[in-house]
Amino acid sequence: MNFKKLGKILGKIMILESMLMLAPLVVSFIYGEEWKYKLAFIIPMAALALMGFLLQIPKPKRDTLFQKEGFALTAFAWLVMTLFGAVPFVISGDIPNYADAFFEIMSGFTTTGSSIIRDITVISHSGLFWRSFSHWIGGMGILVFVLIFIPESNEGSSMHLLRAESPGPQVGKLASKMKVTARILYLIYIGMTVLEIIILMFDKPIPGYEEDKLFISILSTFGCAGTGGFGCIPNSVELYNPFSQYVMAIFLILFGVNFSLYYLIILGKIKTVLKSEEFKSYFTIVILSVALIFISLIWRFEDYPQDYTMEEAFRHTLFQVASIITTAGFSSTDFNVWPMLATTVMFILMLTGAMAGSTAGGIKLSRIVIAFKGIKVNIRKLINPRYVPKIEFEGKQLEQKTINDVFAFITLYFFIFIAAVFFLSFDPVNGEVFTVVSDAGSYQVKHGLLSNLSAAVVCISNVGPGFEAVGPYSSFAEYSTFSKILLSFAMLIGRLEILPVLILFSPKTWKTV
Amino acid sequence: MNFKKLGKILGKIMILESMLMLAPLVVSFIYGEEWKYKLAFIIPMAALALMGFLLQIPKPKRDTLFQKEGFALTAFAWLVMTLFGAVPFVISGDIPNYADAFFEIMSGFTTTGSSIIRDITVISHSGLFWRSFSHWIGGMGILVFVLIFIPESNEGSSMHLLRAESPGPQVGKLASKMKVTARILYLIYIGMTVLEIIILMFDKPIPGYEEDKLFISILSTFGCAGTGGFGCIPNSVELYNPFSQYVMAIFLILFGVNFSLYYLIILGKIKTVLKSEEFKSYFTIVILSVALIFISLIWRFEDYPQDYTMEEAFRHTLFQVASIITTAGFSSTDFNVWPMLATTVMFILMLTGAMAGSTAGGIKLSRIVIAFKGIKVNIRKLINPRYVPKIEFEGKQLEQKTINDVFAFITLYFFIFIAAVFFLSFDPVNGEVFTVVSDAGSYQVKHGLLSNLSAAVVCISNVGPGFEAVGPYSSFAEYSTFSKILLSFAMLIGRLEILPVLILFSPKTWKTV
Repeated sequence: MNFKKLGKILGKIMILESMLMLAPLVVSFIYGEEWKYKLAFIIPMAALALMGFLLQIPKPKRDTLFQKEGFALTAFAWLVMTLFGAVPFVISGDIPNYADAFFEIMSGFTTTGSSIIRDITVISHSGLFWRSFSHWIGGMGILVFVLIFIPESNEGSSMHLLRAESPGPQVGKLASKMKVTARILYLIYIGMTVLEIIILMFDKPIPGYEEDKLFISILSTFGCAGTGGFGCIPNSVELYNPFSQYVMAIFLILFGVNFSLYYLIILGKIKTVLKSEEFKSYFTIVILSVALIFISLIWRFEDYPQDYTMEEAFRHTLFQVASIITTAGFSSTDFNVWPMLATTVMFILMLTGAMAGSTAGGIKLSRIVIAFKGIKVNIRKLINPRYVPKIEFEGKQLEQKTINDVFAFITLYFFIFIAAVFFLSFDPVNGEVFTVVSDAGSYQVKHGLLSNLSAAVVCISNVGPGFEAVGPYSSFAEYSTFSKILLSFAMLIGRLEILPVLILFSPKTWKTV
Repeated sequence: MNFKKLGKILGKIMILESMLMLAPLVVSFIYGEEWKYKLAFIIPMAALALMGFLLQIPKPKRDTLFQKEGFALTAFAWLVMTLFGAVPFVISGDIPNYADAFFEIMSGFTTTGSSIIRDITVISHSGLFWRSFSHWIGGMGILVFVLIFIPESNEGSSMHLLRAESPGPQVGKLASKMKVTARILYLIYIGMTVLEIIILMFDKPIPGYEEDKLFISILSTFGCAGTGGFGCIPNSVELYNPFSQYVMAIFLILFGVNFSLYYLIILGKIKTVLKSEEFKSYFTIVILSVALIFISLIWRFEDYPQDYTMEEAFRHTLFQVASIITTAGFSSTDFNVWPMLATTVMFILMLTGAMAGSTAGGIKLSRIVIAFKGIKVNIRKLINPRYVPKIEFEGKQLEQKTINDVFAFITLYFFIFIAAVFFLSFDPVNGEVFTVVSDAGSYQVKHGLLSNLSAAVVCISNVGPGFEAVGPYSSFAEYSTFSKILLSFAMLIGRLEILPVLILFSPKTWKTV
């Protein structure tokens, strides 16, 4: 392990985080918050900056990074960001318990959106801003960000970092240099973010929140862009006007698209985009899911507590499909009480997620498509053992190694899910009964196996709310500290697509070379 | 497709089934049942025999079977056995609805043990016998049985059949000839079956069932040997004496062992057996599961409705672990109300199943062990891209192809599970509330997502009862006909380990060569 080089990059990331905390600090000044809220950011900023500079002093003997170092660094960088990112909540008292704060900001950076906050109205403006800002930062990736501002002389090292952090089975370079690729991606990201904020400002304000219009627009956009899903007023986006809900739904779907495709659109290669198999499967799944859930909602209208009009049923369906497939996890209504077909479709969307190369989590549609092709190959080989597969994906020859890696990934996803459910079963919260108050009325839920199953899925897939006792109108607050830390790591494993995190646990990684 | 040759073997299987039905017919005579119960078997026996003989007439041009034909034949043979096996229930009126009878006997042959019978006391003795006998037949495999009695001149063809039907990632030949291997396996199976019946006869009779002692012993043994799990008196084995419960638990665990290991024991190679990695992991998991569940039961004793003594808690734990890991699915108590840790462990055991080459279902422990080794290889390759894996399983070099096949299998298992849950979500039963009466008292369960999730798992893994509305004291009767047929196919897919059934759906399979 090239510890000095790792330390150097880690130091740069710490300086970066220190600078990023300026934003919530400014918010704190704008809203004229008490000094403890300002100190909440100033103290960790100072600590981060100091430690970051100190880490620049040692001179590494080797300037390049091996693949394992790239992966380990990525996992480590995210962990360090989270460890420091949790501090402001504790100092300000917004979230006094450190484990809770760690869970919350891990949920933020990994764009999960699961929350342990029971009452969001007690959180300061600066705290809410930092929380949602972490979605925006984490959505595109921390190391990608670093690559833009801090030039890495070695192309190979940059590639290792980008590969470890980018979601999806393959990493494509858009331009000849990694740094240029990273810049293009971030420009698209910033452009779409600004556009959404502007469009949301055209809506009339949410009743009761007239003064916070810009604040809410910005934070909601952060949640959409990173496909994170933290809300900033009670009940997620239930109280938002229909216009904003539609705008957010559309932008969520757009943020679930592979960003490389936007670059192709800019280059005028629209035909290539429309030919993309993952793109086609994404829109097919969105349309099918909306159709199925909408039908299930209007089929037995009278059996369900929410008295939707047709427009409401359509809007909530569109919004929830967009929110769940992109693994954002915003909720416009209580989908916990929806009919089984709707619940089941959403459960499946939680597993699949949207496109690779987007800010969404989950297994990713490209993997699902590749897995299906791989299964087809296996059946063909059984029919004719001498069959030599010639399969393509996105116009390129699909190699057997890619297929095998996808199968391995899905198996690993499944195993980690099972392991998480197992450890959650020790939690004393199991079997407890809670009262949920939502737009579906007030009802009781038991923390049963489904709660743990969905908690594990939504954390690994970076969705946010699950079903039963961890539904959209509940929080993760009732879990024990052990479970919260466990689920935090599940989020990180999901965000970094498993292997970079697992690599940390192998003693072979830590051998000094 | 060599249809004439396939027809010939299929015909032999039909003749075999006709002969197997002699057993319940004899039972019907012994118990002096009405004529309709005897005709229930005589009519399908005649039809099977006639059609079976007719299929012997065409002379095939080619006497060998290709791999795809072996697989397709296996799936087809099981389907035909089930289609005819359901007939007696309909004629006798034990299960008047054909779809229900199809579900029930598919559950029997695949050794699942899920039942649609609400009140077992109305079923005739011959019907009960046929139901449990189907477990015994299906446990070891239908084609293995055929291989013993009907010599196949071609070794290759036999191997294709055995490979399609045998559970596990690898098929080992015990002797130089397939037929000899099949005979050895069946001799061990018969020997253990007879031994269990004899030992169960030493118990005092179950109060109220004094006259049926031998009948119950035989049927319970069928359920253990095939790891099926159909009961023959109300409440599965709750009313059995502790002695019988212990005996069944131990035999279940023994029937979950790879039968090749028994052959090795007979040969005196006990050291080889003790070195088997799958064997060691099997016993480790059984012991750990018993320990965890037992602790969880006595930890919060007072919170749970069943007022177990220490001995009862231990006995039910041992019994349920044995019953679930071997995917038999007998229940000695209502585990639906057990604490979360117990439920979760059982849920995981339902997925894994016991050893390959046993009569158990599920993913199989050898696949789990291989998958873990494969994941380790992937991590090592990430750390050092030039790493050349040298890993062994059961003392032999583990090839990359085997690992990839295991990953593909687990992915496929996961996809089929998701597909089953999706289709179950259309069932009108979803959301209905049922009353369960068990040794835990009377309580209400809602048919929720957990019911469908567990129904899909227990059918694909051939377990039997699941959780919530498909728990040990409920039945699958409330599902719609569509769902019952769907779940029947899930059982077949699980029993034949997926690919042989999927191969039926590929048009390429049906091309005449």
